[in-house]
This record gives sequence, structure tokens and C-alpha cells, in this order.
Amino acid sequence: MSWFYFFDLCGTAVFALTGALAAGRHRMDPFGVTVLAAVTAVGGGTIRDAIIGATPVFWLRDPNYLIVILATVGFTLVFIRRPRKVPQYTLPIADALGLALFTVIGAQKALSLGLNGMSAVIMGLITGVGGGIIRDVLCRQIPMVLRTEIYATASILGGIAYTLSLQLGMNSQTALWLSMLSALILRLAAIRWHLSLPAFDLKTRRD
Amino acid sequence: MSWFYFFDLCGTAVFALTGALAAGRHRMDPFGVTVLAAVTAVGGGTIRDAIIGATPVFWLRDPNYLIVILATVGFTLVFIRRPRKVPQYTLPIADALGLALFTVIGAQKALSLGLNGMSAVIMGLITGVGGGIIRDVLCRQIPMVLRTEIYATASILGGIAYTLSLQLGMNSQTALWLSMLSALILRLAAIRWHLSLPAFDLKTRRD
Amino acid sequence: MSWFYFFDLCGTAVFALTGALAAGRHRMDPFGVTVLAAVTAVGGGTIRDAIIGATPVFWLRDPNYLIVILATVGFTLVFIRRPRKVPQYTLPIADALGLALFTVIGAQKALSLGLNGMSAVIMGLITGVGGGIIRDVLCRQIPMVLRTEIYATASILGGIAYTLSLQLGMNSQTALWLSMLSALILRLAAIRWHLSLPAFDLKTRRD
Repeated sequence: MSWFYFFDLCGTAVFALTGALAAGRHRMDPFGVTVLAAVTAVGGGTIRDAIIGATPVFWLRDPNYLIVILATVGFTLVFIRRPRKVPQYTLPIADALGLALFTVIGAQKALSLGLNGMSAVIMGLITGVGGGIIRDVLCRQIPMVLRTEIYATASILGGIAYTLSLQLGMNSQTALWLSMLSALILRLAAIRWHLSLPAFDLKTRRD
Repeated sequence: MSWFYFFDLCGTAVFALTGALAAGRHRMDPFGVTVLAAVTAVGGGTIRDAIIGATPVFWLRDPNYLIVILATVGFTLVFIRRPRKVPQYTLPIADALGLALFTVIGAQKALSLGLNGMSAVIMGLITGVGGGIIRDVLCRQIPMVLRTEIYATASILGGIAYTLSLQLGMNSQTALWLSMLSALILRLAAIRWHLSLPAFDLKTRRD
Repeated sequence: MSWFYFFDLCGTAVFALTGALAAGRHRMDPFGVTVLAAVTAVGGGTIRDAIIGATPVFWLRDPNYLIVILATVGFTLVFIRRPRKVPQYTLPIADALGLALFTVIGAQKALSLGLNGMSAVIMGLITGVGGGIIRDVLCRQIPMVLRTEIYATASILGGIAYTLSLQLGMNSQTALWLSMLSALILRLAAIRWHLSLPAFDLKTRRD
């Protein structure tokens, strides 16, 4: 099993976990939890595959993704029963991990299909942020990507790092680790220290 | 005309009706009503076809679906003018009927394309709940599938019943009726007696 | 460069502008602004291409769309810094222009792929209203198409005008201008004089 495949399944698990935790905040039943976890975990990759035309989409061709989702939901339902036991930052940190992993997976998939570097960065972004956007829209939260804290930025950085590393002749496994960690560290730092780029602000009246 | 096709058009009509009724609660004009009715009626099947790669999607290949939607919208606009005349449970009951019909149609389509049983259940679920989710998100309602009452559960039950019946060698028409009725009855019972599975609840602090 | 291509890029720019302005109201960072602008600009056309099966979708095959979006976002971030400088109607007027342009482009694309007139009108509608719906849903606004003022109506009028003009043997460039202007003028008039068709209203209790 390659590192790419392993990372893809890891990203699926952590995004499924964020979906299941979000479902728990809306008091959903086990099947509703499963639906939200699955949509979060495969939503971004599904949009990517539909846009590229790689149909049937990935999780119809490889049942392991669905098995990982079901196992994650089962684990969540059994072991995370008391709200107090979920540390405050569990959801954002799991989301950050999924964002970093899926960004690189998405860029890799685009490059392997012969798309150019710019498209690869965008495919990484769609794969990384798509599932979380669907999760947040369904739960009527403002999507994380719309808030000020560095989010899309981390995904775009990861995608550019991966694409550039390969074009500079780096080994694909090193590029994978390097770009994944750069996106993850940037996003975690943004959560920890509330880092943000200057906002484009048309709301506050300043003059 | 086969039962499958007839049921598919019936599901299209009842989901179009739920979209038109939801539009009436937002005071939309006739073309807005038509858009919401159409999105609700074909949304789930469109996502299904895009995911499978069955493009152009079904309603581009067969104009009868659009004709059914236009007829349903015309009927709704002409005959349902006074709010008091819409009994309280019209929308959820029509939605339940559409959910049951589209679940079986979606599973059937997946199986006819050679997908395995697990994928068929998921395709049934996407076809059954997709349109209603889009309708509710556009109207800024919490999607029915996110609420506690048995909803996704009914669709999954119907999909499993259909797939298992066929694998046990049952006649495809009997399997169609059996699975459709099982999903419908479960969902109607859930509406009538407010049945729900135990919720996964991370909101209430219990300790 | 044909008028169709020029109009398509113009529509991309004005929809990107509406997305960037909407982002400014939510205080997003530059990369978040870019994501929302891009989703608004290519969202409708992407859904159209995925539904028709014209994959990889248009902006993966022609980088000019992304370049136009990046340039528009750059322009917006640099020149539109003070809220007071954005006249009240900028967003709806830019949105109306994009609606009119994209409707005709979408209908044209459907006809060029051999779809019938009814499908062409619907593809025009999806291309015209899709991006704006995604923008409004992500920003948790009620989508413009759901409000009473003439909106879907203007797009459907434009699509029918374009399809009919061609079937009546009109020159394709004349048909393009005629239908684009008819949709634009109708939508602008609706904004200016608050025109609306009679609403389908199930909320107000009248009896």
C-alpha cells in the first residue's frame, strides 16, 4: 500500500470524524450521522472526480473508503458518548489534518491525469475544502473557508508546494510529506494563534 | 410502460409538489416556483447520474420528466391557492412518498449499471434524499435528513430490502413493491408517531 | 475572438466581482475572496458541464477563465477598499449582467452539443443562476432566485429568445445580442421599479 493511498484513507477517517461530531451537535440518529460523515469525507473528492470526468467516482470503484467511514462512525458512536470528553479543539484539528491530506491527494490525482500545475492546485483545494463546506452548509454553519482565519490559504500553499516540489525534481514521497506538513502546520498555527491575513472588509465603515 | 418508469414519474410529481409548496411559503413568483420544484424533483437523480457518469443526465434524454414537473407546478399554482386548504402534513407525506419511490429507482439504476449491492443502497439514498436536501438548503430550512426522526433510515431500509430481495431471487416487480412500501410505511409511521432512533447527542451536557 | 467567447469572459468577470463583493461583506481574507469569486464565476457553467457530460469542465481546458477571475479579484482588492465607494446597486447590477450573459452562453453551448430547445433554455438557466445560488448559499443569504423580483423569469426569457431567434433563422450574432439585452433589460427594470410577477403565496392567511 502506497503512502498516497494510506494518507487518502487517513483523510477519509478524520473528515468522517468531523462530520460525525458535527452531527452529534445536531442530535442526529445513527443513520443521519453516517450520512453526514460520509458526505463530509467523500464530498470534496466526489466533486473533483465529477469535474474532471473520472466517473464512476473513486468510492464507487474502491469500497475501502466506505468501510473506513463506517468504521469511523461506529467508533465515534461507541466511544464518544459524553460531550465533556470531546476536547474543544478536536473538530478544528481533525479538520486541519483532513484539509492537509486531501489537498495533496487531490493535486496528485490531477497531475496523474495530466492536468497542469494551476489546475492541480485548484483540484487540491476542491478536494481539501469541498467536504467541509458541504458539512457546514448542511448544518447551517458558516463554512470554515469563509471565516477570516487562514484556511483556503493553507490548502493553496500545500497544493503549490506539492506541484513545485515535483517540478523541481523532488522525489514524490518527499514532496508528499513536505507539502502535507506545510499545509497542516500553517493551519494549526492559524488555529493556535488566531493568525489571519488582512481581511477584505466592505462592512465596517471606516471613512 | 414499466412499473419502474411509472413510479419514477410519480416520484418526480410528488417531489415537484413538495418543492412548489416550499416555494409558496417563500412567496416566490411562478418561474421561481418552477425552478425550486424542478431542482427538488430531479436533484437527487442528477447527482446520482453525475457520480456514476451516466451523462447526459436522465432528464436531458427523456423530456417526460420535465413535462411532469411543469404539469405539477401548473396544477399546484391553479388549484392550491388558499393556505388553509393545504393540510398540515401534505408536505411531509408527499416527501415520504417521493423518498420511498426514488430510493428504489436509484438502487435499481445502480444495479442495472452493474454496481454492487452496497453502492446500490447508497445510490438509492442519494436519489431519495438529494432533491429534498437541495430544496431545504435553498429555503434555509434544516434538511429533513438532519433531524432526529427516521428519514435516512427509511431510505437505507428500502435500498437494502430491494437489493436483498433481488439477490434472494425474488421477482423484480415484487421486490419493487415490497421495498418501496417498507420504506414508505417506516417513514409514515415515524411522522405519525414521532418515532426516532436514539440520537447521538454531543450538545446536552449530561455529566 | 468571437463575441460568444468575449461575452463569456465578461460574464466571468462580473460574476467574480459579485463574489468578491459578497466576500468583502463577510470580512474574508484574500484567498477566501478568491475562492468565493471563482465559485460564483464558474459554478453555473461547471454544473452545466457536469450534467451534460462535457468533462473535464470548461475552465480546466481553457486557463483564460481562471486568469480573468484572478485579475478581477486583484482589481477588486486593490481598488475597492472603502465601503462607501461601492454604490448600493453595484452587486445586483453586476449580477444582472452576468445572469444575461451566462444564460445565452449556456443555451448556446447546449445547442452546439445537439440538445433540443427546451434543454437549451434549462442549460441557460442553470449557467445563469447556478453560480449566484452557490455564492448566496455559502454566504447564508436567501438566493436571489428565491425572492419575488423577476430573476429566473429574465433568464428563461433570454433562453427562449435565443433559441427561438435561431429557429426562426436569425443570424447567431444578432440572436446573441437580442436575447442577452432582453434578459438584461427585464432584470434591470425589475431592480429599478421593483417589478414582480404575482407571487404564489401559501404563507399569508387570506380567508
